[in-house]
Amino acid sequence: MTVAHRVPGCELCEHDGGRLIHHDTDWRVVGVDDAEFPAYYRVICNRHVSEFSDLDPAERERCMVLVDTVERVMRELLHPVKVNLASLGNLTPHLHWHVVARFAWDSRFPQPIWGAVQRAADPAALGAVAAALPDVDRRLAERLHYA
Amino acid sequence: MTVAHRVPGCELCEHDGGRLIHHDTDWRVVGVDDAEFPAYYRVICNRHVSEFSDLDPAERERCMVLVDTVERVMRELLHPVKVNLASLGNLTPHLHWHVVARFAWDSRFPQPIWGAVQRAADPAALGAVAAALPDVDRRLAERLHYA
Repeated sequence: MTVAHRVPGCELCEHDGGRLIHHDTDWRVVGVDDAEFPAYYRVICNRHVSEFSDLDPAERERCMVLVDTVERVMRELLHPVKVNLASLGNLTPHLHWHVVARFAWDSRFPQPIWGAVQRAADPAALGAVAAALPDVDRRLAERLHYA
Repeated sequence: MTVAHRVPGCELCEHDGGRLIHHDTDWRVVGVDDAEFPAYYRVICNRHVSEFSDLDPAERERCMVLVDTVERVMRELLHPVKVNLASLGNLTPHLHWHVVARFAWDSRFPQPIWGAVQRAADPAALGAVAAALPDVDRRLAERLHYA
């Protein structure tokens, strides 16, 4: 990867962006503390690039291996009805991927997490996902270390 | 890629899903006719798989080469302020990527295209993007043919 650079005022240049699960020279994976969507992780490029197509082929493949690994671990441990992936960056144009486990009982399913609220999330189901997060974090850290 | 199969009732098994720009054995790229977001393409897996992590590594890389190519052509010809990428599939769980060029003047920027309306889109700017689409489609078809 090319020489890292930081952009003053960029939130993802200046902060981890969540609880740090994995960190290497070029990428990091963080957990996002979101009460509505507890099973929410981000794969973040350490250097400041704004678009996916700013990556070279090796970087692109590495990025998607990390996204794939997060998705796999969430499927293994949480059995979501769907996993949602997105790289938007309209507010924070520093390349990062959202990886979010979705459930039929969650507050916005089948809408995107940015869509309209559909219902109050089932509190017991939400609590069960939140309770499983330390295990998800631990398995993710192990798996990403070898990814 | 493993043997293709179709799921009855799946919209993306039964229909192209938009105006067909590129088609090969395993993948297709279509343009989405969306008046609010005219520069909107989808990269669609021909066989019915629901999650990104259902792909093997070669399929994953091929998928993201296509997404990257669509993004590059949109950046070259349309100069969006941001490109948004997403694989959601909550309503249609057949693997497809949304690739959408975003502009500061569009109706929902900086919200995701699924977020709240922010303004009426600038009609002249919207018309200019729509007018450029035949060129985008043509360059995409060429570039994807060799991708």
